[in-house]
This record gives sequence, C-alpha cells and structure tokens, in this order.
Amino acid sequence: MATIKDVAQLAGVSTATVSRVINQSAYVEPITLERVQKAIKTLNYQRDARASALASRSNNSLGLLTGNLADPYFALIAKHVEEVARLHKSQLVVVSGGHNAQHEKEGLDYLISQGCEAMVVHSKMLDNDLLLRYSAQLPAMVLINRTIAQISNRSVWVDNRSGAAESVRYLIEQGHRKIACVTSDLPIEDRTDRLAGYKDAMQAANLPVEPHWIINQPFSEQGGEIAGKQLLTQCPEITAAVTFNDVMAAGLMASLHEQGIKVPEDISIVGFDDVLLARYLYPRLTTMHNPVAEMSAHAANLALKLKKSGYVPPRQHRFDARLVIRQTVSSPKLPI
Amino acid sequence: MATIKDVAQLAGVSTATVSRVINQSAYVEPITLERVQKAIKTLNYQRDARASALASRSNNSLGLLTGNLADPYFALIAKHVEEVARLHKSQLVVVSGGHNAQHEKEGLDYLISQGCEAMVVHSKMLDNDLLLRYSAQLPAMVLINRTIAQISNRSVWVDNRSGAAESVRYLIEQGHRKIACVTSDLPIEDRTDRLAGYKDAMQAANLPVEPHWIINQPFSEQGGEIAGKQLLTQCPEITAAVTFNDVMAAGLMASLHEQGIKVPEDISIVGFDDVLLARYLYPRLTTMHNPVAEMSAHAANLALKLKKSGYVPPRQHRFDARLVIRQTVSSPKLPI
Repeated sequence: MATIKDVAQLAGVSTATVSRVINQSAYVEPITLERVQKAIKTLNYQRDARASALASRSNNSLGLLTGNLADPYFALIAKHVEEVARLHKSQLVVVSGGHNAQHEKEGLDYLISQGCEAMVVHSKMLDNDLLLRYSAQLPAMVLINRTIAQISNRSVWVDNRSGAAESVRYLIEQGHRKIACVTSDLPIEDRTDRLAGYKDAMQAANLPVEPHWIINQPFSEQGGEIAGKQLLTQCPEITAAVTFNDVMAAGLMASLHEQGIKVPEDISIVGFDDVLLARYLYPRLTTMHNPVAEMSAHAANLALKLKKSGYVPPRQHRFDARLVIRQTVSSPKLPI
Repeated sequence: MATIKDVAQLAGVSTATVSRVINQSAYVEPITLERVQKAIKTLNYQRDARASALASRSNNSLGLLTGNLADPYFALIAKHVEEVARLHKSQLVVVSGGHNAQHEKEGLDYLISQGCEAMVVHSKMLDNDLLLRYSAQLPAMVLINRTIAQISNRSVWVDNRSGAAESVRYLIEQGHRKIACVTSDLPIEDRTDRLAGYKDAMQAANLPVEPHWIINQPFSEQGGEIAGKQLLTQCPEITAAVTFNDVMAAGLMASLHEQGIKVPEDISIVGFDDVLLARYLYPRLTTMHNPVAEMSAHAANLALKLKKSGYVPPRQHRFDARLVIRQTVSSPKLPI
C-alpha cells in the first residue's frame, strides 16, 4: 500500500506539502496541488478512514477575518456577522489581520487549518492575485468592503467614491467653497476612493482643490486630533472639512473644541461610516451612513449559502452610503 | 483489538462521549471522564497513530471568549490580548458569549474542539461550578474580569467596588450630596459590585441614598440616553451622577445636552472604564480608568505561561481602577 512518502516522492514535494493538501490545512499553490492530487491518484493512495474522518471534520463555524479589533467600524462588522451566525447555529470565529499582509495571510491560513469553510474576509493588504487564489480554494469565502471583478458575485462592497462625493456636494450646497479633506495616511483602497470622490465633487462644482487642504493622518481618534491642529495652521481659510471616517471626526472635533473653534458655526464637519459613536459626539455628527450592518449580514448569509450550495448567481453586491444630517453642518459665516 | 464501541459499552456511555474524551472535543463531566478513561485502560484500547496525531494537533492558538463584540470595552480586551498573541506568534481566535450562558458555553466548547489550550475567558453568565469544571479540564484557561476563590491564581480582575466608591467620594469632595447612580439592568457581578461601592461611599459620608436615585437601564449608549430623560423627571434634585460605564455616560450626556442641561455646570458626571470614547466626548469625560489594557495583557501572558508550564504560583491578580479627572465634574451650583 502506498504511503504518504511515496506520494511526496512522486510529486516531488515534501510530505508536509502532501499533508497540507490532504488535510486542507493551509493554502497550496494550484500547480503543486494538481501535482499532489495526480500522484495520489496514480498510486491509489488511501488514507486511514478514521484519520480522514478526523481531518475533514467539517465544522459548522463561520470565520471572520477582520481589520483592527479595537476600531468601532470593525466591531460593527463582527456584531452583524455574529447575528447571522447565531441565526444559523454556526459558531463565529474571529481572527484579526491588523492591516498587515502577513497577519491577514496567517489569519486566513488559520481559519483553513481549523476546517472553517464559510468565511467573511476583510482584507485590504493582500493583493488581488493572492485573494483570487484563496477564493479558488475556498468556494464559500466572501469579501467584504472590497470588490474583485473575477469574483464580483462574492464581493460585498460600498461605493466609497460616490459616497464621499455626496458628502462634499452637501457642503457645497450649504455654501461652502473651501473644504478640507482629512484622510488616512495608509494607502488603502478606501482612502483612494473617498479622496477621489472628494475631488469629483469639487471639480463638478468648478472649485479648486489646494493640495494643502488634504491632510493625511492615521485613521484613528488620535489621528483626527493631530489633524485638528494641522488644519488651523495649514489651511485657516477653510470653512468645512470631510473626514475619512467618524473616529477621525471625533478627534478633530475634540481638538477644535480645545482650540476655541465652534462646530458648526466656525467649521462644518461631515464624517463617514455612521458608527454608534457618531450619534454621541457633541454636536451630533452629520455623516455618511455606511451600510455596514446590512453589508455584514449580507456577506455572512452569502458565505453560508455558498457553503451549502457552492454556487451563487453572478450579480454585484454593491451598497450605497447615504447622508445622515445631524448637527455639525451649517452655512459658512462669511459667504465667499 | 478493542474498538471504540467496546469502550463505550464497558463505560456505559455512547461512542460519541468516548470520542469526546479521546479527542478532547468538548467538555465531559469528570465522573464520566473517569469511567471512560478506566474502560480505555482496561481494554487497552489503542487509537490509530495517525488519527491521534491529527486529533491532538495541539495548536499554537490563543482563544478569547468575549462578551459583546460591538462594545468598546470588549474591543479593548481583544486588542490587548491580540498584541500578546502576536508577540508570542500565537494565533488569536475570538468567540463571543453575548452575555448569554448558552452562548458562553458554546464558545468555550468550540475553542476546546479546535484544540485551543491557552485561553482568556470573559464569562459573566456561567456559574462558578461550571467554570471550575472547565478550568479543571483546561489548565491554561484564565478568567478575566472575574474572580473565583479556588482558581484565584488564574483570575484577573479589577476591584469594581472600591473603584466605584472612589468616583463617588470624589463627587462628595467637590460638594455634591445628592448623587444618582445610573447602572445596568443586567444582574451581573460588575453591577452588584459597582452599586455596592456607590452605597459604601454614600454611607461613609453619612449621606442617604434615595431608592429612586438608582436608575437601571441597558449598559449601552441607548440605555444612557433613556436614563438621561428618566433622571430629570425622576430625581430633579440630584446635582451629580456616576454611571455604570462610559458608553452609558455618552448616552446620558447626549440626552442632557438635548434637554438643555449643562455638564458639568448643572450636573456633574463620572463614568467608568475609560474607553477611548471617553476622551472624545464633549466635555471630555471624567472617569474611573479601568486597567483593561494591563489586565488583558496580563491574562493573555498568564494563559500562555500556563500552557507552557502548567503551573503558576498561588497569588491574586487584582487590579485597581483609578480616577482620571477631565472636564465633567465641577462643584454643585447650589451648595446644600
């Protein structure tokens, strides 16, 4: 009877690789996968029945690869994925990628090694190619907050660009002309798209964008606080600002309060995401509602459905952000 | 050769139970465990070597059973447990108990079934007995935010009672006499302890506590908002309030703002926890700093150490909350 060593020798790989293929315990390059599968067939290699039963213990879990566990945006994703998991009597397992490619990969490999099939993946640091390879191995893997054309039927995303444009259009309608964009300093897609939306709206209104109106800081409360100081020294002429997200807006507002600047009388602010926090800032934050709850539930349901049927019809899963008017926008003091 | 069926028959249990014992895939009552182990020994039952290697694949993960994924307090725990996991090249796996006994149990069983040994457990709904039984089976399980005498060397907790008393003492020192306590409506230990601390401090200062000064609401932003309305109708005489946690304080403050009540001029407020949000409220929230970061890191390190050595010396792991003075407390308008 052929052993795992025989298979490894014929395929020209290590026994560890053969084991990875057999147990589906980590990602294996498609070309290697094929070679190993061929060797298994040629040698008619059979695993011990009990061993395979154990290894393939398909479990009822729903995996979630998230970004930063401490960020309320990701807390919201986790919460709504969890609700769907509970409804389907699945066990939610969360791993975090920490906005780092290596950690994202380790998180995915861990979920695979634990026999997790259905998964919702928030990855901003792995490239399309790698994610496509993972998705080929994992038919019930669904992307959230990202879209890749080849797997658009498994990509759940929000149109950040038109969302950001809408927030700027709203400020322009209120009479603002000089509008800052307080954005992230990480080169992630969300930043690119929301910044593009800001420029779209300014351009459509024939308004110039001064390069120093774009302030790049970490997308955290602290980053927003630093941006608040930068804003007043770097572009005292502006009458309004859009922020990359609500937590940056929270920091920005705290910093402006402290500098004696009134929101919205002196500076109007529009956030993005509408996390719970937004309602509890003072004044309550006008922001773009990011349908994170709906997207998360949709992605979780899609993953569980794919695990069951292996197929979903080709369609886009695009969501739109919408403006929520609260208390941080007014007309500018001095119309220009 | 003896089979799993023989073992089950001799032990008088199902084969599923035998399998649970062999694979350590879920909790088994100690008395049953002993019976099955005895039957295995008597029959000299041997598992296939490959199968056992697979089943016992001890993995390098660090499990976290958390409360509510969307609450910033739990986000903070997850973040700091994660940092320790990364440092030790462990994979963090988070499951959520949702403040529900059944879900807490399912989460623990899932972690066990996945071969997770080191784990940090935030459980408020399982009783001491059950947690003690789990802890007997899991030598590297550490409790966070809870203490059980028999496993005090694996219980990492904060002294909620004296923390709450300190916040009330501070208000009394500022001249307040009529102080409300906005607390949780869930019968969890934290509520009992913090409420006791409030009463301790009032009593020590010879101040009466009117029953209607204690307001019970869900410990969320929304709960705080409802409490804000209740406060003004139910006890207009009070000049200050302590809240169960910062998110309740956030809701309370938003509600008071909306009702035209100034913080701290009209009502002083002290929160509890010092989550990130506290700094970004307006005014910035005076609160009891709960050393969640230190406790979480400590608990994670303890779990990993226990996994390695199986032993930690008997000592208490008690932490203290400390007052962080920001902007939500002043002297009362009308000294009484």
